[in-house]
Amino acid sequence: MSKIPVAILGPTGYTGLELIELISRHPSMRVAYLASARANAPRIDQEFPRLRGRMGDADPQCRAIDHGAIADACRLAFLCLPHEAAMEHAPALLVRGVKVVDLSAAYRLKDPAVYEKAYGHPHTDRAGLEHAVYGLTELARDRVRGATLCANPGCYPTAAALALVPLIKAGLIDPGTVIVNAASGVSGAGREPKAHTTLVEAGENYSAYGIGSHRHQPEINQSLRMYAGVGAGGGGGGGGGSAEALFVPHLLPIERGILETIYALPRPGVDTRALHEALAAAYAGEPFVAVRQEAPTLRDVQRTNMVHVNARVVAGRAVIVAAIDNLTKGASGQALQNANLMLGLDETAGLG
Amino acid sequence: MSKIPVAILGPTGYTGLELIELISRHPSMRVAYLASARANAPRIDQEFPRLRGRMGDADPQCRAIDHGAIADACRLAFLCLPHEAAMEHAPALLVRGVKVVDLSAAYRLKDPAVYEKAYGHPHTDRAGLEHAVYGLTELARDRVRGATLCANPGCYPTAAALALVPLIKAGLIDPGTVIVNAASGVSGAGREPKAHTTLVEAGENYSAYGIGSHRHQPEINQSLRMYAGVGAGGGGGGGGGSAEALFVPHLLPIERGILETIYALPRPGVDTRALHEALAAAYAGEPFVAVRQEAPTLRDVQRTNMVHVNARVVAGRAVIVAAIDNLTKGASGQALQNANLMLGLDETAGLG
Amino acid sequence: MSKIPVAILGPTGYTGLELIELISRHPSMRVAYLASARANAPRIDQEFPRLRGRMGDADPQCRAIDHGAIADACRLAFLCLPHEAAMEHAPALLVRGVKVVDLSAAYRLKDPAVYEKAYGHPHTDRAGLEHAVYGLTELARDRVRGATLCANPGCYPTAAALALVPLIKAGLIDPGTVIVNAASGVSGAGREPKAHTTLVEAGENYSAYGIGSHRHQPEINQSLRMYAGVGAGGGGGGGGGSAEALFVPHLLPIERGILETIYALPRPGVDTRALHEALAAAYAGEPFVAVRQEAPTLRDVQRTNMVHVNARVVAGRAVIVAAIDNLTKGASGQALQNANLMLGLDETAGLG
Amino acid sequence: MSKIPVAILGPTGYTGLELIELISRHPSMRVAYLASARANAPRIDQEFPRLRGRMGDADPQCRAIDHGAIADACRLAFLCLPHEAAMEHAPALLVRGVKVVDLSAAYRLKDPAVYEKAYGHPHTDRAGLEHAVYGLTELARDRVRGATLCANPGCYPTAAALALVPLIKAGLIDPGTVIVNAASGVSGAGREPKAHTTLVEAGENYSAYGIGSHRHQPEINQSLRMYAGVGAGGGGGGGGGSAEALFVPHLLPIERGILETIYALPRPGVDTRALHEALAAAYAGEPFVAVRQEAPTLRDVQRTNMVHVNARVVAGRAVIVAAIDNLTKGASGQALQNANLMLGLDETAGLG
Repeated sequence: MSKIPVAILGPTGYTGLELIELISRHPSMRVAYLASARANAPRIDQEFPRLRGRMGDADPQCRAIDHGAIADACRLAFLCLPHEAAMEHAPALLVRGVKVVDLSAAYRLKDPAVYEKAYGHPHTDRAGLEHAVYGLTELARDRVRGATLCANPGCYPTAAALALVPLIKAGLIDPGTVIVNAASGVSGAGREPKAHTTLVEAGENYSAYGIGSHRHQPEINQSLRMYAGVGAGGGGGGGGGSAEALFVPHLLPIERGILETIYALPRPGVDTRALHEALAAAYAGEPFVAVRQEAPTLRDVQRTNMVHVNARVVAGRAVIVAAIDNLTKGASGQALQNANLMLGLDETAGLG
Repeated sequence: MSKIPVAILGPTGYTGLELIELISRHPSMRVAYLASARANAPRIDQEFPRLRGRMGDADPQCRAIDHGAIADACRLAFLCLPHEAAMEHAPALLVRGVKVVDLSAAYRLKDPAVYEKAYGHPHTDRAGLEHAVYGLTELARDRVRGATLCANPGCYPTAAALALVPLIKAGLIDPGTVIVNAASGVSGAGREPKAHTTLVEAGENYSAYGIGSHRHQPEINQSLRMYAGVGAGGGGGGGGGSAEALFVPHLLPIERGILETIYALPRPGVDTRALHEALAAAYAGEPFVAVRQEAPTLRDVQRTNMVHVNARVVAGRAVIVAAIDNLTKGASGQALQNANLMLGLDETAGLG
Repeated sequence: MSKIPVAILGPTGYTGLELIELISRHPSMRVAYLASARANAPRIDQEFPRLRGRMGDADPQCRAIDHGAIADACRLAFLCLPHEAAMEHAPALLVRGVKVVDLSAAYRLKDPAVYEKAYGHPHTDRAGLEHAVYGLTELARDRVRGATLCANPGCYPTAAALALVPLIKAGLIDPGTVIVNAASGVSGAGREPKAHTTLVEAGENYSAYGIGSHRHQPEINQSLRMYAGVGAGGGGGGGGGSAEALFVPHLLPIERGILETIYALPRPGVDTRALHEALAAAYAGEPFVAVRQEAPTLRDVQRTNMVHVNARVVAGRAVIVAAIDNLTKGASGQALQNANLMLGLDETAGLG
Repeated sequence: MSKIPVAILGPTGYTGLELIELISRHPSMRVAYLASARANAPRIDQEFPRLRGRMGDADPQCRAIDHGAIADACRLAFLCLPHEAAMEHAPALLVRGVKVVDLSAAYRLKDPAVYEKAYGHPHTDRAGLEHAVYGLTELARDRVRGATLCANPGCYPTAAALALVPLIKAGLIDPGTVIVNAASGVSGAGREPKAHTTLVEAGENYSAYGIGSHRHQPEINQSLRMYAGVGAGGGGGGGGGSAEALFVPHLLPIERGILETIYALPRPGVDTRALHEALAAAYAGEPFVAVRQEAPTLRDVQRTNMVHVNARVVAGRAVIVAAIDNLTKGASGQALQNANLMLGLDETAGLG
């Protein structure tokens, strides 16, 4: 077996399960170490019976988070851990030569002050933060290729940045007028049961939450600055709007998928065709982006690593609709895409 | 039995079912005539077995649409018919002394040219259109009380207008910057099966549709003109936006409920408190409006005639969230509210 | 106001909410006391915002469980409490002259040994158990009328007993061959979040649970003994089956509703017509039972107090399908039906 | 490219979509011809936008059903057509040397009289019927390997037969007492919108249908005769039950998955352990069967080709729970499994 061995730390959540399912179909990667922080490390195929008989040669038994053992067995580790645990384990793995793709938010926000405000605890690995590469693959492919620590982007910011960056860079919309009206399936809230995520409460329901205060708002704005140059003194436009994009997430009564309906004022003279062509040009040849003539639906992207995006000008506003699967392109799929690059593999391997 | 007898024309759709259920609990109204256009008029409790044994003394057998017989038996008729059929039957009932609450769109848009553009067929009852009262009850109570023909508002426009009118009238937001991001359950698409309304296609899905081209967009803008004076050359504000509100509906994977997340630029100095107080003042004493401190969810309003609304200023924008049940306050509930007024009954009767 | 004042103990669960909604439409009953065991008794319309403005004159503020105060204010109390708390509070209220409808399982199983085996804790009010009336209304109407303590039946047993008792009493099916294959919405599991009741786990899912070991199995069998005389040495039939009905519940990915598909061997010569007529005769004039020619669906009964039942003989077996709403006829609706009788009111009041 | 080229006839339904998705991940098979009977053959990635950019080198453009062209391009064809069309096209392809896996019911029932009664039209290819191999892979592997025409089993019968055959063959349960209580997602009803498959009607609902009269009942019984020798004068047992299994399907408010709760009388002395061991022995080494200690849920098998099965004896009855995905193991997955065998490939290829 010449498959590259990788570890998953924290495999008992939904991103862990998704990674295991993806890697089980990967032609040149295999799960060699499942590391759980639980006192009694479970068998992952008892935790998720749908993995029964579907993990190939991988050992379903989770083990302790033992950095040395992981380094002995694996070349790369996926961290599906709480933010604080990620900051603890990432450096310990890196120092032992294990590349890391971190699916938590620990290394996403470049400014530790912004991080600490958004997440409510101090950042304990500023060195790591400095050299971590933000892995929005389509916009950072070359940097990801050389990364040892990849900060896998948040689900909402992935869709928002991929939809907006080409349009802002091309000067087609006013970044100071951006409103990201987003909706996500419940799996985005994690596996831990909560009062608002039961079927009775979340089913047949729909609601806005974290209006203007969600942790992904600074991450979206960071991407617009990093990749589209929105920033310092600028962008605001004449609308009197803030220079920052406004982000309003909603909870959908479904398992998975994110659809973002994004509003902005177009620059004078910009029409639907201009928006479409800018997106089409930006993403020509991209394996995981489909620039659509019609607004996508969640069914178009669920359980795929694709981003579907459509843009138009209507009634004087730009309306951009972007759809991804929050657990795939919004988490584990993009993590695998990044890992493929970091390991010198075909970027699309295991993601078909 | 001194209950007031009413008719329902077109009871085999979802608004008809909702009306029958509501009226069956009404202390002083009863269904005296069910009129179906079908060749073989069905028993309504075979069409909807959930009505078995729950219609009190009402006859579950549908009959033909016979204007004379309806006039003999009833004082008021609810029209749950296609738009074109409504324009045919409303005048025939009115001339026979039967008051009419029309749940179709036939009499909603005051300008026949706007109607014809939105609905794709000519308006064939301009006389009726002229004297019809647009029944957004909270904003038109006195006119409804004296109406003989009430145009029951569309579902989306009901929530949008109730949320926006007090804020625009108070000068708190710029009407030229309004974006109504709305989401509705599938019952809004009617009972007829369609390719996109099956459980497999609509379930676990979510999508935008009719972006900027939905028939309810002119109705929303008509309400902002009628009730909030938005209009002629004005309102546009400095944002370069259109003077018209932009309306973007989405389809939710649920049966019922509409939630609208509405964005606008606040006038300088306007804060959350100002928005809240304007709404609270406008709706003080209203039995069917709750001005909330938190954003409502659909569960808060489903199967009630309530509107829940919350407004705030965040990141330089006003964000208003309004929720209704599309079949109750957005259709049959408001129709009954209007009928109560037109018949001199307690406005809330049967709607508890 | 001459409405009869009642109390609800434990109103923050789903049966409490359902009761409040039902009583708010009741013409001659009102909620006069909401009693919560929580340290900080909540306002019920903050706990359930859908109650905002919909409780009439009732005070939404929950208070402590104070037996004296409840007795001062109310003539009857609904107990929506855990089983053990019900056994504590029921006697204290009864002794103060307050009638009690208990929605827990505390007083359902007549044999304390059976109770203790099923529920895992001792029965602490055997006196109460002795004089409690099991409130399967259609089969125990006269006894309920005179009851001071009514044990409101479990949801599954309500549907099973109403479907089976007339057929067994008429000698049409062999009670020793009964299999109750049941399916319930998630609200039956209560409001407390659990690992298997989140939308991600329970949604788009379906599973059998508690196969042959569910607490409602002894309650079903008790009803077959009590009302249909199944028992002592008999019933077994020639099938080699157990004399006890087998009960296999399943969890449906919906909020509410119970549908039971019940199998049994018919006695020789029994056909569909005989089954139908036995049910029709047993329930002639019953306001809340519809004997159907076709198998009912959950939509037919959701949010009503109805039982829909259909029976047929096919391929040598009797197949009986019964549907109820687990929160209405399976809990709060039947509780109100019983309370109406205990208070000398019209049995159907508030349940239309 | 040395991948084996295959055709899909009728790719615009759900089984077609599932096949395309599976084959797109197959290491040694490729879709070389999509054949649609529609007048204007669609692009399949416009019909199903989720296929955009996910079909590898396959041409998304559907073409006419041209037997010669298909034979020129492909070695095997999957028929996802109506039964009658399958009987027309299968012989025409076979005669041209194209192997056929038929996903319709055309070749499933060996007795044309039984077929005609169940499906309401005559069987027009009795020669084909005679040599067709019923492809319940685990029970017919060797015959499938040599087949040119494979009748892919129905979804319900797949789960029922795999669960029951080993237990009946081992003499552990009485085949004359079998009741198959089954529940399926709505995708089983096909893609065509129907009154009962809309989200409003099917969502939040659950119902029994085709009680004892479903077309899959004779197919289940045929499997019990073919593979377990149930039949001629026997099996009935002492229960007075029919010698035929009773099949009662239900419609679940979900997209996909079948769960069957199967009841039978165990032979004297048979316990849970005996049932479990018989299944474990029968399926030792099977890649797509998991014999479970606990009852499976639909989540355990959705979007996999697995069958999960659990059996126990409780209260004197055998209760067997089997779960599959109706579109995968119940249709396209098993079709691919069979095609793999017919083409000499690894049986599990593309099904990981």
